[in-house]
Amino acid sequence: MVIKKQKASEWSGVEQSDAFAIDSTNLFDKLGGLQTFVNLSTNFYNRVYDDDEEWFRSIFANSKKEEAIQNQYEFFVQRMGGPPLYSQRKGHPALIGRHRPFPVSHQAAERWLHHMQQALDGMSDIDTDSKIKMMNFFRHTAFFLVAGDELKKQNKEVPCKHGTSKPAAV
Amino acid sequence: MVIKKQKASEWSGVEQSDAFAIDSTNLFDKLGGLQTFVNLSTNFYNRVYDDDEEWFRSIFANSKKEEAIQNQYEFFVQRMGGPPLYSQRKGHPALIGRHRPFPVSHQAAERWLHHMQQALDGMSDIDTDSKIKMMNFFRHTAFFLVAGDELKKQNKEVPCKHGTSKPAAV
Repeated sequence: MVIKKQKASEWSGVEQSDAFAIDSTNLFDKLGGLQTFVNLSTNFYNRVYDDDEEWFRSIFANSKKEEAIQNQYEFFVQRMGGPPLYSQRKGHPALIGRHRPFPVSHQAAERWLHHMQQALDGMSDIDTDSKIKMMNFFRHTAFFLVAGDELKKQNKEVPCKHGTSKPAAV
Repeated sequence: MVIKKQKASEWSGVEQSDAFAIDSTNLFDKLGGLQTFVNLSTNFYNRVYDDDEEWFRSIFANSKKEEAIQNQYEFFVQRMGGPPLYSQRKGHPALIGRHRPFPVSHQAAERWLHHMQQALDGMSDIDTDSKIKMMNFFRHTAFFLVAGDELKKQNKEVPCKHGTSKPAAV
Protein backbone atom coordinates (compact mmCIF):
# COMPACT_ATOMS: atom_id res chain seq x y z
CA MET A 1 0.00 0.00 0.00
CA VAL A 2 2.98 2.34 0.40
CA ILE A 3 3.61 1.80 -3.29
CA LYS A 4 -0.05 2.55 -4.12
CA LYS A 5 0.09 5.82 -2.18
CA GLN A 6 3.28 6.86 -3.97
CA LYS A 7 1.75 5.99 -7.33
CA ALA A 8 -1.38 8.00 -6.57
CA SER A 9 0.77 11.07 -5.84
CA GLU A 10 3.16 10.50 -8.73
CA TRP A 11 0.53 9.88 -11.38
CA SER A 12 -1.87 12.56 -10.18
CA GLY A 13 0.82 15.16 -9.48
CA VAL A 14 -1.01 15.88 -6.20
CA GLU A 15 0.70 15.43 -2.85
CA GLN A 16 -1.24 13.55 -0.17
CA SER A 17 -1.35 16.69 1.99
CA ASP A 18 -2.94 18.71 -0.84
CA ALA A 19 -5.40 15.91 -1.64
CA PHE A 20 -6.70 15.87 1.93
CA ALA A 21 -6.73 19.64 2.39
CA ILE A 22 -10.50 19.14 1.91
CA ASP A 23 -10.42 18.36 5.64
CA SER A 24 -8.99 21.75 6.64
CA THR A 25 -12.48 23.29 6.44
CA ASN A 26 -15.95 21.77 6.56
CA LEU A 27 -16.84 22.01 2.88
CA PHE A 28 -20.36 20.68 3.45
CA ASP A 29 -21.17 23.67 5.66
CA LYS A 30 -19.13 26.15 3.64
CA LEU A 31 -20.83 25.24 0.36
CA GLY A 32 -24.34 25.43 1.73
CA GLY A 33 -25.18 21.79 2.38
CA LEU A 34 -26.80 18.97 0.43
CA GLN A 35 -28.20 20.79 -2.60
CA THR A 36 -24.79 21.96 -3.84
CA PHE A 37 -23.53 18.38 -3.90
CA VAL A 38 -26.71 17.08 -5.58
CA ASN A 39 -26.26 19.73 -8.28
CA LEU A 40 -22.58 18.94 -8.78
CA SER A 41 -23.16 15.19 -9.16
CA THR A 42 -26.15 15.77 -11.44
CA ASN A 43 -24.06 18.05 -13.66
CA PHE A 44 -21.23 15.55 -13.64
CA TYR A 45 -23.29 12.49 -14.57
CA ASN A 46 -25.30 14.39 -17.19
CA ARG A 47 -21.95 14.93 -18.92
CA VAL A 48 -20.75 11.35 -18.39
CA TYR A 49 -23.92 9.70 -19.71
CA ASP A 50 -23.85 12.06 -22.70
CA ASP A 51 -20.14 11.65 -23.42
CA ASP A 52 -19.08 11.52 -27.08
CA GLU A 53 -16.45 8.97 -26.10
CA GLU A 54 -18.25 5.66 -26.30
CA TRP A 55 -15.47 3.73 -24.49
CA PHE A 56 -15.93 5.93 -21.43
CA ARG A 57 -19.74 6.10 -21.55
CA SER A 58 -19.89 2.31 -21.78
CA ILE A 59 -18.27 1.92 -18.35
CA PHE A 60 -21.51 3.28 -16.87
CA ALA A 61 -23.86 1.61 -19.35
CA ASN A 62 -25.27 -0.88 -16.86
CA SER A 63 -25.75 1.66 -14.06
CA LYS A 64 -28.82 3.81 -13.64
CA LYS A 65 -27.90 7.48 -13.83
CA GLU A 66 -30.08 8.38 -10.82
CA GLU A 67 -28.34 5.76 -8.72
CA ALA A 68 -24.87 6.87 -9.85
CA ILE A 69 -25.74 10.46 -8.90
CA GLN A 70 -27.01 9.46 -5.45
CA ASN A 71 -24.01 7.22 -4.74
CA GLN A 72 -21.67 10.05 -5.61
CA TYR A 73 -23.28 12.96 -3.76
CA GLU A 74 -23.89 10.86 -0.65
CA PHE A 75 -20.21 9.91 -0.59
CA PHE A 76 -19.07 13.51 -1.19
CA VAL A 77 -21.40 14.81 1.54
CA GLN A 78 -20.12 12.21 4.02
CA ARG A 79 -16.45 12.75 3.13
CA MET A 80 -16.61 16.53 3.15
CA GLY A 81 -18.08 17.09 6.58
CA GLY A 82 -21.79 16.35 6.20
CA PRO A 83 -23.95 13.56 7.62
CA PRO A 84 -22.85 9.97 6.84
CA LEU A 85 -25.53 9.44 4.17
CA TYR A 86 -23.47 6.96 2.19
CA SER A 87 -22.70 4.60 5.08
CA GLN A 88 -26.28 4.72 6.38
CA ARG A 89 -27.50 3.41 3.03
CA LYS A 90 -24.59 1.37 1.67
CA GLY A 91 -21.94 0.82 4.35
CA HIS A 92 -18.23 1.55 4.06
CA PRO A 93 -17.18 3.56 1.01
CA ALA A 94 -14.47 0.92 0.39
CA LEU A 95 -13.40 2.84 -2.70
CA ILE A 96 -11.03 0.28 -4.15
CA GLY A 97 -13.34 -2.66 -3.43
CA ARG A 98 -16.37 -0.97 -4.96
CA HIS A 99 -14.47 0.01 -8.11
CA ARG A 100 -13.17 -3.51 -8.66
CA PRO A 101 -15.72 -4.32 -11.42
CA PHE A 102 -14.61 -1.32 -13.48
CA PRO A 103 -11.61 -0.76 -15.77
CA VAL A 104 -10.05 2.24 -13.95
CA SER A 105 -7.28 3.06 -16.42
CA HIS A 106 -5.15 6.23 -16.55
CA GLN A 107 -7.23 7.26 -19.56
CA ALA A 108 -10.53 6.66 -17.70
CA ALA A 109 -9.26 8.64 -14.70
CA GLU A 110 -8.36 11.59 -16.93
CA ARG A 111 -11.77 11.47 -18.65
CA TRP A 112 -13.57 11.32 -15.27
CA LEU A 113 -11.55 14.33 -14.10
CA HIS A 114 -12.25 16.23 -17.33
CA HIS A 115 -16.00 15.90 -16.78
CA MET A 116 -15.68 16.79 -13.09
CA GLN A 117 -13.66 19.92 -13.91
CA GLN A 118 -16.36 20.96 -16.39
CA ALA A 119 -19.10 20.25 -13.85
CA LEU A 120 -17.27 22.26 -11.16
CA ASP A 121 -16.63 25.14 -13.58
CA GLY A 122 -20.39 25.45 -13.98
CA MET A 123 -21.06 25.71 -10.25
CA SER A 124 -21.32 29.41 -9.35
CA ASP A 125 -22.06 28.61 -5.68
CA ILE A 126 -18.67 26.94 -5.14
CA ASP A 127 -15.81 29.38 -4.52
CA THR A 128 -12.49 29.05 -6.35
CA ASP A 129 -10.51 27.91 -3.31
CA SER A 130 -12.98 25.10 -2.62
CA LYS A 131 -12.93 24.06 -6.28
CA ILE A 132 -9.14 23.75 -6.16
CA LYS A 133 -9.30 21.69 -2.95
CA MET A 134 -11.97 19.43 -4.40
CA MET A 135 -10.12 18.88 -7.68
CA ASN A 136 -6.92 17.99 -5.79
CA PHE A 137 -8.91 15.46 -3.79
CA PHE A 138 -10.62 14.07 -6.90
CA ARG A 139 -7.38 13.90 -8.88
CA HIS A 140 -5.46 12.11 -6.15
CA THR A 141 -8.36 9.73 -5.51
CA ALA A 142 -8.78 8.93 -9.21
CA PHE A 143 -5.16 7.83 -9.46
CA PHE A 144 -5.36 5.99 -6.14
CA LEU A 145 -8.05 3.92 -7.86
CA VAL A 146 -5.89 3.48 -10.96
CA ALA A 147 -3.19 2.10 -8.64
CA GLY A 148 -5.83 -0.19 -7.08
CA ASP A 149 -6.82 -1.36 -10.53
CA GLU A 150 -3.22 -2.27 -11.32
CA LEU A 151 -3.07 -4.42 -8.18
CA LYS A 152 -6.13 -6.26 -9.49
CA LYS A 153 -4.14 -7.25 -12.56
CA GLN A 154 -1.20 -8.37 -10.41
CA ASN A 155 -3.57 -10.51 -8.37
CA LYS A 156 -4.62 -12.33 -11.51
CA GLU A 157 -1.06 -13.03 -12.52
CA VAL A 158 0.45 -14.08 -9.20
CA PRO A 159 -1.28 -16.11 -6.47
CA CYS A 160 -1.83 -14.15 -3.29
CA LYS A 161 0.93 -14.68 -0.74
CA HIS A 162 -0.77 -15.06 2.59
CA GLY A 163 0.94 -13.90 5.72
CA THR A 164 3.92 -12.32 4.00
CA SER A 165 2.62 -8.82 3.41
CA LYS A 166 2.61 -5.41 5.03
CA PRO A 167 0.14 -4.54 7.79
CA ALA A 168 -3.52 -3.88 7.09
CA ALA A 169 -5.33 -0.72 8.02
CA VAL A 170 -7.09 -2.23 11.00
CA MET B 1 -21.74 -4.99 -4.05
CA VAL B 2 -25.35 -5.51 -3.04
CA ILE B 3 -24.45 -9.15 -2.54
CA LYS B 4 -21.45 -8.19 -0.40
CA LYS B 5 -23.60 -5.97 1.81
CA GLN B 6 -26.15 -8.75 2.27
CA LYS B 7 -23.40 -11.23 3.11
CA ALA B 8 -21.90 -8.86 5.67
CA SER B 9 -25.27 -8.61 7.44
CA GLU B 10 -26.11 -12.30 7.11
CA TRP B 11 -22.75 -13.63 8.29
CA SER B 12 -22.31 -11.07 11.06
CA GLY B 13 -25.91 -11.17 12.24
CA VAL B 14 -25.76 -7.36 12.42
CA GLU B 15 -28.09 -5.20 10.35
CA GLN B 16 -26.52 -2.32 8.45
CA SER B 17 -28.51 0.19 10.55
CA ASP B 18 -27.11 -1.29 13.78
CA ALA B 19 -23.58 -1.41 12.38
CA PHE B 20 -23.63 2.30 11.59
CA ALA B 21 -25.39 3.37 14.80
CA ILE B 22 -21.85 4.48 15.74
CA ASP B 23 -22.79 7.63 13.79
CA SER B 24 -25.78 8.46 16.00
CA THR B 25 -23.45 10.07 18.57
CA ASN B 26 -19.91 11.42 18.32
CA LEU B 27 -18.07 8.57 20.04
CA PHE B 28 -14.73 10.36 19.84
CA ASP B 29 -16.06 13.18 22.00
CA LYS B 30 -18.19 10.93 24.21
CA LEU B 31 -15.30 8.60 25.04
CA GLY B 32 -12.87 11.37 25.91
CA GLY B 33 -10.81 11.68 22.75
CA LEU B 34 -7.60 10.17 21.42
CA GLN B 35 -6.22 8.41 24.51
CA THR B 36 -9.19 6.03 24.82
CA PHE B 37 -8.66 4.82 21.27
CA VAL B 38 -4.90 4.49 21.72
CA ASN B 39 -5.53 2.36 24.80
CA LEU B 40 -8.12 0.20 23.05
CA SER B 41 -5.89 -0.52 20.05
CA THR B 42 -2.88 -1.15 22.29
CA ASN B 43 -4.89 -3.64 24.37
CA PHE B 44 -6.21 -5.26 21.21
CA TYR B 45 -2.85 -5.74 19.50
CA ASN B 46 -1.13 -6.86 22.70
CA ARG B 47 -3.62 -9.74 22.65
CA VAL B 48 -3.24 -10.39 18.92
CA TYR B 49 0.56 -10.49 18.95
CA ASP B 50 0.46 -12.75 21.99
CA ASP B 51 -2.26 -15.06 20.64
CA ASP B 52 -1.90 -18.79 21.39
CA GLU B 53 -3.32 -19.50 17.94
CA GLU B 54 -0.29 -19.44 15.69
CA TRP B 55 -2.37 -19.39 12.46
CA PHE B 56 -3.94 -16.09 13.55
CA ARG B 57 -0.78 -14.54 14.98
CA SER B 58 1.06 -15.31 11.74
CA ILE B 59 -1.26 -13.04 9.73
CA PHE B 60 0.39 -10.10 11.53
CA ALA B 61 3.90 -11.54 11.62
CA ASN B 62 5.36 -9.16 9.05
CA SER B 63 3.76 -6.07 10.55
CA LYS B 64 5.27 -3.98 13.34
CA LYS B 65 2.96 -3.92 16.33
CA GLU B 66 3.41 -0.18 16.85
CA GLU B 67 2.39 0.50 13.27
CA ALA B 68 -0.62 -1.82 13.49
CA ILE B 69 -1.76 0.01 16.63
CA GLN B 70 -1.38 3.44 15.02
CA ASN B 71 -3.16 2.40 11.81
CA GLN B 72 -6.07 1.10 13.85
CA TYR B 73 -6.57 3.92 16.33
CA GLU B 74 -6.18 6.58 13.65
CA PHE B 75 -8.87 4.89 11.58
CA PHE B 76 -11.19 4.49 14.59
CA VAL B 77 -10.70 8.14 15.61
CA GLN B 78 -11.46 9.33 12.08
CA ARG B 79 -14.48 7.06 11.63
CA MET B 80 -15.98 7.77 15.04
CA GLY B 81 -16.11 11.54 14.85
CA GLY B 82 -12.56 12.69 15.56
CA PRO B 83 -9.99 14.39 13.33
CA PRO B 84 -9.10 12.63 10.05
CA LEU B 85 -5.76 11.33 11.33
CA TYR B 86 -5.79 8.26 9.12
CA SER B 87 -6.34 10.10 5.82
CA GLN B 88 -3.81 12.80 6.68
CA ARG B 89 -1.12 10.14 7.01
CA LYS B 90 -2.24 7.33 4.71
CA GLY B 91 -5.11 8.48 2.46
CA HIS B 92 -8.43 6.74 2.00
CA PRO B 93 -9.19 3.91 4.44
CA ALA B 94 -10.13 1.74 1.42
CA LEU B 95 -10.85 -1.13 3.80
CA ILE B 96 -11.25 -3.87 1.21
CA GLY B 97 -8.29 -2.73 -0.87
CA ARG B 98 -5.97 -2.50 2.13
CA HIS B 99 -6.95 -5.92 3.41
CA ARG B 100 -6.32 -7.56 0.05
CA PRO B 101 -2.95 -9.04 1.08
CA PHE B 102 -4.49 -10.85 4.06
CA PRO B 103 -6.53 -14.06 4.32
CA VAL B 104 -9.71 -12.63 5.87
CA SER B 105 -11.60 -15.88 6.50
CA HIS B 106 -14.71 -16.38 8.63
CA GLN B 107 -12.45 -17.95 11.24
CA ALA B 108 -10.02 -15.01 11.18
CA ALA B 109 -12.93 -12.55 11.52
CA GLU B 110 -14.22 -14.41 14.58
CA ARG B 111 -10.76 -14.48 16.15
CA TRP B 112 -10.28 -10.75 15.51
CA LEU B 113 -13.66 -10.07 17.11
CA HIS B 114 -12.85 -12.29 20.09
CA HIS B 115 -9.74 -10.24 20.85
CA MET B 116 -11.59 -6.97 20.29
CA GLN B 117 -14.37 -8.03 22.68
CA GLN B 118 -11.75 -8.89 25.30
CA ALA B 119 -9.96 -5.58 24.75
CA LEU B 120 -13.24 -3.64 25.04
CA ASP B 121 -14.24 -5.57 28.18
CA GLY B 122 -11.08 -4.26 29.83
CA MET B 123 -11.85 -0.61 29.05
CA SER B 124 -13.53 0.93 32.10
CA ASP B 125 -13.76 4.36 30.43
CA ILE B 126 -16.06 3.10 27.66
CA ASP B 127 -19.73 2.82 28.69
CA THR B 128 -21.78 -0.28 27.91
CA ASP B 129 -23.94 1.35 25.24
CA SER B 130 -20.87 2.56 23.33
CA LYS B 131 -19.27 -0.89 23.62
CA ILE B 132 -22.36 -2.47 22.04
CA LYS B 133 -22.38 0.09 19.21
CA MET B 134 -18.69 -0.43 18.57
CA MET B 135 -18.94 -4.22 18.56
CA ASN B 136 -21.85 -4.08 16.09
CA PHE B 137 -19.73 -1.88 13.86
CA PHE B 138 -16.68 -4.14 14.20
CA ARG B 139 -18.68 -7.32 13.64
CA HIS B 140 -20.41 -6.04 10.51
CA THR B 141 -17.14 -4.62 9.16
CA ALA B 142 -15.24 -7.84 9.80
CA PHE B 143 -17.72 -9.82 7.73
CA PHE B 144 -17.83 -7.10 5.08
CA LEU B 145 -14.11 -7.81 4.70
CA VAL B 146 -14.73 -11.57 4.62
CA ALA B 147 -17.16 -10.92 1.74
CA GLY B 148 -14.47 -8.78 0.06
CA ASP B 149 -11.99 -11.61 0.48
CA GLU B 150 -14.37 -14.02 -1.25
CA LEU B 151 -14.58 -11.65 -4.23
CA LYS B 152 -10.79 -11.79 -4.43
CA LYS B 153 -11.00 -15.55 -4.98
CA GLN B 154 -13.69 -15.09 -7.64
CA ASN B 155 -11.42 -12.61 -9.42
CA LYS B 156 -8.73 -15.25 -9.67
CA GLU B 157 -11.08 -17.81 -11.17
CA VAL B 158 -12.98 -15.68 -13.67
CA PRO B 159 -11.55 -12.86 -15.80
CA CYS B 160 -13.01 -9.47 -14.99
CA LYS B 161 -15.90 -8.50 -17.25
CA HIS B 162 -15.33 -4.87 -18.13
CA GLY B 163 -18.28 -2.62 -18.66
CA THR B 164 -20.89 -5.16 -17.69
CA SER B 165 -21.09 -4.60 -13.97
CA LYS B 166 -23.09 -2.67 -11.41
CA PRO B 167 -22.36 0.99 -10.67
CA ALA B 168 -19.38 2.15 -8.67
CA ALA B 169 -19.55 4.30 -5.59
CA VAL B 170 -18.35 7.46 -7.31
